[in-house]
Amino acid sequence: MTRLFNEPADFADEMIAGFVAAASRWVQAAPGGVVRSTRAPEPTVSLVVGGGSGHYPAFGGLVGPGLAHGAAMGNLFASPSGTQVYNVAKRTEQGRGILLSYGNYAGDVLHFGQAQDRLRAEGHDVRTVLVTDDIWSAPADQIEKRRGIAGDLVVFKVAGAAAEAGHDLDAVEELARRANARTRSFGVAFSGCTLPGADEPLFTVPEGRMAVGLGIHGEPGIDETDIPTANELAEMFVEKLLTELPEGVTVAGSRVVPLLNGLGSVKYEEMFVVFKRVSELLGEAGVTVVEPEVGELCTSFDMAGVSLTLFWLDEQLEELWSAPADSSGFRKGSVAPQLVAEKVDAEEEAEAIAVASEESRALAATVLAALDAVVDVVDANAEELGRIDRIAGDGDHGIGMQRGSHAGRDAARGVVAAGAGAQTTLNRAAEAWSDRAGGTSGAIWAEILRSLGAELGDESAADAATVARGVVAASDAVMAFGKAKPGDKTMVDAIVPFAETLAAEVASGAETVAAWTTAAAASEDAADKTADLTAKLGRARSHGDKSQGTPDPGAISFALIVAAVLPVLAAS
Amino acid sequence: MTRLFNEPADFADEMIAGFVAAASRWVQAAPGGVVRSTRAPEPTVSLVVGGGSGHYPAFGGLVGPGLAHGAAMGNLFASPSGTQVYNVAKRTEQGRGILLSYGNYAGDVLHFGQAQDRLRAEGHDVRTVLVTDDIWSAPADQIEKRRGIAGDLVVFKVAGAAAEAGHDLDAVEELARRANARTRSFGVAFSGCTLPGADEPLFTVPEGRMAVGLGIHGEPGIDETDIPTANELAEMFVEKLLTELPEGVTVAGSRVVPLLNGLGSVKYEEMFVVFKRVSELLGEAGVTVVEPEVGELCTSFDMAGVSLTLFWLDEQLEELWSAPADSSGFRKGSVAPQLVAEKVDAEEEAEAIAVASEESRALAATVLAALDAVVDVVDANAEELGRIDRIAGDGDHGIGMQRGSHAGRDAARGVVAAGAGAQTTLNRAAEAWSDRAGGTSGAIWAEILRSLGAELGDESAADAATVARGVVAASDAVMAFGKAKPGDKTMVDAIVPFAETLAAEVASGAETVAAWTTAAAASEDAADKTADLTAKLGRARSHGDKSQGTPDPGAISFALIVAAVLPVLAAS
Repeated sequence: MTRLFNEPADFADEMIAGFVAAASRWVQAAPGGVVRSTRAPEPTVSLVVGGGSGHYPAFGGLVGPGLAHGAAMGNLFASPSGTQVYNVAKRTEQGRGILLSYGNYAGDVLHFGQAQDRLRAEGHDVRTVLVTDDIWSAPADQIEKRRGIAGDLVVFKVAGAAAEAGHDLDAVEELARRANARTRSFGVAFSGCTLPGADEPLFTVPEGRMAVGLGIHGEPGIDETDIPTANELAEMFVEKLLTELPEGVTVAGSRVVPLLNGLGSVKYEEMFVVFKRVSELLGEAGVTVVEPEVGELCTSFDMAGVSLTLFWLDEQLEELWSAPADSSGFRKGSVAPQLVAEKVDAEEEAEAIAVASEESRALAATVLAALDAVVDVVDANAEELGRIDRIAGDGDHGIGMQRGSHAGRDAARGVVAAGAGAQTTLNRAAEAWSDRAGGTSGAIWAEILRSLGAELGDESAADAATVARGVVAASDAVMAFGKAKPGDKTMVDAIVPFAETLAAEVASGAETVAAWTTAAAASEDAADKTADLTAKLGRARSHGDKSQGTPDPGAISFALIVAAVLPVLAAS
Repeated sequence: MTRLFNEPADFADEMIAGFVAAASRWVQAAPGGVVRSTRAPEPTVSLVVGGGSGHYPAFGGLVGPGLAHGAAMGNLFASPSGTQVYNVAKRTEQGRGILLSYGNYAGDVLHFGQAQDRLRAEGHDVRTVLVTDDIWSAPADQIEKRRGIAGDLVVFKVAGAAAEAGHDLDAVEELARRANARTRSFGVAFSGCTLPGADEPLFTVPEGRMAVGLGIHGEPGIDETDIPTANELAEMFVEKLLTELPEGVTVAGSRVVPLLNGLGSVKYEEMFVVFKRVSELLGEAGVTVVEPEVGELCTSFDMAGVSLTLFWLDEQLEELWSAPADSSGFRKGSVAPQLVAEKVDAEEEAEAIAVASEESRALAATVLAALDAVVDVVDANAEELGRIDRIAGDGDHGIGMQRGSHAGRDAARGVVAAGAGAQTTLNRAAEAWSDRAGGTSGAIWAEILRSLGAELGDESAADAATVARGVVAASDAVMAFGKAKPGDKTMVDAIVPFAETLAAEVASGAETVAAWTTAAAASEDAADKTADLTAKLGRARSHGDKSQGTPDPGAISFALIVAAVLPVLAAS
């Protein structure tokens, strides 16, 4: 929903004023919208676009070199008036004629039409190209009734580049018309936007459902389905658009620009996941993908929706699509001379496995069994760890521990099967753990496994003293690494008492299993007590830490893990 | 929330693959992230950035000429591992050293630190500059503990430009450090994002409230307030940031780059409204705004939040900020030679008011009274008109009619006071109505008022026959304009019976008020009957029109208006 506004009635005017303040490198204010603040060295045909506001970068954000010369900016989702269009167009005119281009909506057609009449009456040569890319807005035999959505950008880009290249109005018009004829879009939505000051969203889609073919102002779609996976959505898009071909186009061998457009709150990462599959499917169909765009090209405030546009190129259109353009909302072309880089090595080198003794290979099997136990206990507690972490942090501790422990165990399994000793097994597990888990906990667990491995080596079996030395080394490494000390409410609060207790027990003659049992209990105790530390640290007061009364998730997962490993030690 | 994904565990990998497919003009895949697909003509210092994923364009979207050479891309909101950072950095190295730069988070510090150690052990010169712009994440006397948010971009941009300019590693490091020292940010949030596959958002903010100082992963803020107006938020941002000055900076006379960053679903139009006030406030404080940015620079999926960053320039930093850069997510610098355009005339010319007869001036007063009645009836019914319109359309009919009728009445009031006759009054009202209302209804009402005005003229009083001719002309104009005929479920369904009945009544000798009464009743009847038209038109079946059983909002508002005008006619 729209949250930030002053008087709702002033929203559009204030928005335009703020846009001009932000984008003065590209635009200046004109009555009714904006025109360029730059000009080309020679006069060109002038391209005037526009429509309702709420679709940024459409339409003011598309004014600049290689794109539009002016944009008439209407009120929210409402066409600019004929007077607005006239006032903007008039100020862009350079003696070579004007092309008006905009999405095919009744209000826009009426008002741009009024402006065209008025400009023609004054003797200007004015043409109009309507954008009609939305395949769901009318049947294929009534293309002229279709509305324009993200395909606007394609038509504007081609027309703008053609004007910049010095073409006359006939040519610019023909190219824009051709670009529109070769552009098709398919949109879906999950929720509607709420206009400034409105009580309700423009439309709603039931939870878990997706509206198919919905327009950018919430105009009705044609169907509703369950929300598909990213791959299924890509397949739905591409399958349909490959049957909705412009005249004269065959799929295989064609060159196409895909535009994956986010309407507002379907975000970039999701779109990249969808685009991965879109690009694979186009490749499989024999289509060459040319300079694609994935981003927010034509929005609808924070509507949750996404559309795919396919622009079927010919040679001349490809040249115009690739030509430089520079506006606040869309740019193309390199600004500095650059060479093509060599392809980097995308694979990591496989490392050889060090030779290990029979004893160390047996120990490695125990390490692997212990890692299996770690995976099990982390899986069983991942949700709870996430919950604790969410109170003060980013809530990813559970999922990070899962990714790390699984990757570590899997790496260990691979090298144990290939005959690795304990140290090599722990090192490989450490690397995989930190590599997959990311985050602090991944790095710390890698330190623990590596420190332990350094003591165990690849040569001999381990006695209680060796294990204790390894654990103490791990504890020291964790403290050094994270620069934390006991009482800071981190994992250090659990590992230090564990290491100290283990070392003391072993020093006084205890066997590994007995010493580990006592140490694990001390660790659990200490982890639980981290719940009391927030207030002592004064964090709640000074930084709004809401975790008072909640233990540290890293300390808890450490205590859980050392307890879970106990049966493996007992069995070995 | 995140809706589009396949296996949540695969999300980050698939996202990176899709990003590489979409952005191959700038990047190529490397183990652990991306590196440039282009290279500068001469070797430069290499800038490696990175962090968790979910912040696009940070971090992969900031790789390209004039910006970073590589980005290590961690899992969602999780630091990349040391191995990832190492693998990316290693592939960017050009023999002139490496600068690692990233936001100050524990996990990133650990992993980039590991990579730095490993690279140094191999003999590379490696430096690190942490970004610490978030003023709420630690007190001013512990700046080194602050985390990095949108200020990342400032530091990367300066370092990237410095590298591109050929500076050595010492200089690049110093400039990056200086840029960080002169950058401060302040963020707020209204709602948290939900990670792919998660059941709950990372955090929530109560409805109608705003969290102050919140981090980009939902790290705790320092306060919570009611959602302010756009202007109040701008004031909160600027007031605080003007007291959080970098060492050696004085406000008045300074040059500053403001970055207004949207976290995901606070959209562009809202940000422009906020930015309008930000830029005014900075101006009032004596600060010169230099090349600002308003957009999505560092996101957190679809978190609803916004931050303001101020980057206090010195001469050298300004040059580096303005230098060309070209990445998929951030670009600067013009791609084509352009000249500065002349300032266009931002005012419309005031038109002179035509001389009018005494009779026509009296008639104009009646027109104004009628417009007052229109405003009242529209205001009283705006909500209901919006509701009806929302069923099949974009829901703006009520608000559009309000804007139009108010503007039309106000314009009429102005010219009536200045002595205008009926036609001039109606023409000015028409222009203002369509100018402010936008949309189809604005254009149509302007046609109605203009047609009526053309019959009434500025010379004489109006008899019943003149009024009837004016209404018939209006009806014809509306049909011609919208290319609609009776039965199409548009306003035509109400205006045609109104005009026909009025003309017939007047022709058979009725006076204006009596004829208007009968015609208004016919219009109301016909407007109500538009509720039955959807099924007849077959729209519900073919295009998912959900308005079956709902009347056309334009027909309803027409019928309401002609009924509301009746008492004015009776009184005149």
